[in-house]
Amino acid sequence: MSLTVVGSVAFDALETPFGKRDRVLGGAATHFGLSASFFTEVNAVGVVGGDFTDAEWDVFRRHHINTDDIEVVPDGKTFFWSGRYDYDMNTAQTLDTQLTVFATFAPKISKNSKKAPVVFLANIQPTLQLGVRKQCENAEFVAMDTMNYWISSVKDELLETVKAVDCIIINDAEARQLTDEPNIHKAAKAIMDLGLRAVVIKRGEYGATLFTPTSFFSTPAYPLESVFDPTGAGDTFAGGFMGYIAAQKDINDDTLRRACVYGSVMASFNVEKFGTERVDELDYPEINQRFKDFKRMTHFDDIPFERAVTA
Amino acid sequence: MSLTVVGSVAFDALETPFGKRDRVLGGAATHFGLSASFFTEVNAVGVVGGDFTDAEWDVFRRHHINTDDIEVVPDGKTFFWSGRYDYDMNTAQTLDTQLTVFATFAPKISKNSKKAPVVFLANIQPTLQLGVRKQCENAEFVAMDTMNYWISSVKDELLETVKAVDCIIINDAEARQLTDEPNIHKAAKAIMDLGLRAVVIKRGEYGATLFTPTSFFSTPAYPLESVFDPTGAGDTFAGGFMGYIAAQKDINDDTLRRACVYGSVMASFNVEKFGTERVDELDYPEINQRFKDFKRMTHFDDIPFERAVTA
Repeated sequence: MSLTVVGSVAFDALETPFGKRDRVLGGAATHFGLSASFFTEVNAVGVVGGDFTDAEWDVFRRHHINTDDIEVVPDGKTFFWSGRYDYDMNTAQTLDTQLTVFATFAPKISKNSKKAPVVFLANIQPTLQLGVRKQCENAEFVAMDTMNYWISSVKDELLETVKAVDCIIINDAEARQLTDEPNIHKAAKAIMDLGLRAVVIKRGEYGATLFTPTSFFSTPAYPLESVFDPTGAGDTFAGGFMGYIAAQKDINDDTLRRACVYGSVMASFNVEKFGTERVDELDYPEINQRFKDFKRMTHFDDIPFERAVTA
Repeated sequence: MSLTVVGSVAFDALETPFGKRDRVLGGAATHFGLSASFFTEVNAVGVVGGDFTDAEWDVFRRHHINTDDIEVVPDGKTFFWSGRYDYDMNTAQTLDTQLTVFATFAPKISKNSKKAPVVFLANIQPTLQLGVRKQCENAEFVAMDTMNYWISSVKDELLETVKAVDCIIINDAEARQLTDEPNIHKAAKAIMDLGLRAVVIKRGEYGATLFTPTSFFSTPAYPLESVFDPTGAGDTFAGGFMGYIAAQKDINDDTLRRACVYGSVMASFNVEKFGTERVDELDYPEINQRFKDFKRMTHFDDIPFERAVTA
């Protein structure tokens, strides 16, 4: 099944304890699309400025991502974000945000992109997300991301959008904020009760947790001694998760679990280099080896225990 | 194999969002011992005051815990700790600590307790821990806990003790503090390099992580919508972990993994009621069912993926 992602395409300036980049390819649709492209055909919907060069388009081309729906505003500038990470790599400090062409982004979705059975609404204004969701009326599985800004500023619109999708992929702070519920399991349940098939909570260095109406699944993060640049890890996770789902015949508990592991696999690569550098160069043997590593990290034999008490 | 635990036996006063208790049985050796008693024979080494009543001794008796080495100071008072948890149940606010008889605790270890092949040094002064470790010279597997107070006040003595044990079971903040290393994987490796066979990092609501020189294993916490009282969860984890190990013929990667899961199982019960109330009433079918639940929460099928790119 093909997959359509709607979201930002950007230039990022990054500073981490391990180095600095003044301008790398970034944005949610970029990180998501690259990651998903290892699993299925991807259509990306977004907007860029005239400063987007062949070097950037080449990254999409290399991964066979359909960019027909990435609008180019020739006299505009591409969305720019600048951030810094200190030794606590869990949270970025935003140094600069220039929305530019992204400020007035109105997703234009071609017939081809609308036909995709799997759709990901990356973090954009919730009403725009809902508009896209309605246009992709035949989609079988639609997931969304969001952020603290929309939860505090347009919660009602956001909740309407959540009700219209099958799955939400957010971090734990967002889940708590969305539901006013400090316990993450209660928070996930409250979101699920809006009518979702799956709630995925991203927990940074602690991994990811998948809730369905009937089950709970948890995967740790891959043990990395150095996280080089966490930018885009969440979108790369979502790309692996949704890409894997799009490649399956059935979407069931087992495929959702494996999707969660593939998401974690892809995110673990993303943070090993700056921007898209690591995922851009990935191959299948690496991906499958790390998937196996995740199995080894979490599996154990099931041998029931009973102590023979001699009292 | 039998198991000896050295540590505090206490009365706790507890306040959580779910209720209040003025005096419940607590202490590291108590929580640890009860938990381990489901797996093996336990000798507890500690000290209590004349205020320790039959009701408390009965808890130990019910679980066939050998209390011969719990010294009674008839005119002394039992160690008392009072704490409060707010909605963030990860950290307790200490309201009162009365060390009393515990202030001058000098573990007296009988021949029987010394003979135990498995020993747990709960959180006490590191030099006392080292003394116990040396007395149990034939022990096959010795593990220890510690706390931030000892790390900052007597780090050198503490490191000597760490070098003399096989395994350390601490929380992530302690691992970071002990090694001055923010990355938890590097921190665990630095501790392992002191000569340990296993490092277990307790991560509260995020579960527990086991490092050995050659492998990494992670288990989530059991998904609980209400954590009633987290007091003793860490010691209950250690009790399940060490108790299970003591019941095995071989201590290898597979048994350490299952030990980690049994530790998580026992800790998940501990937090469901106040103090020792829940573990005190546990039975094997409940334990084995939750062990199975952990398997279901973490296991997935291993199906390698390759996208057939038609480009």
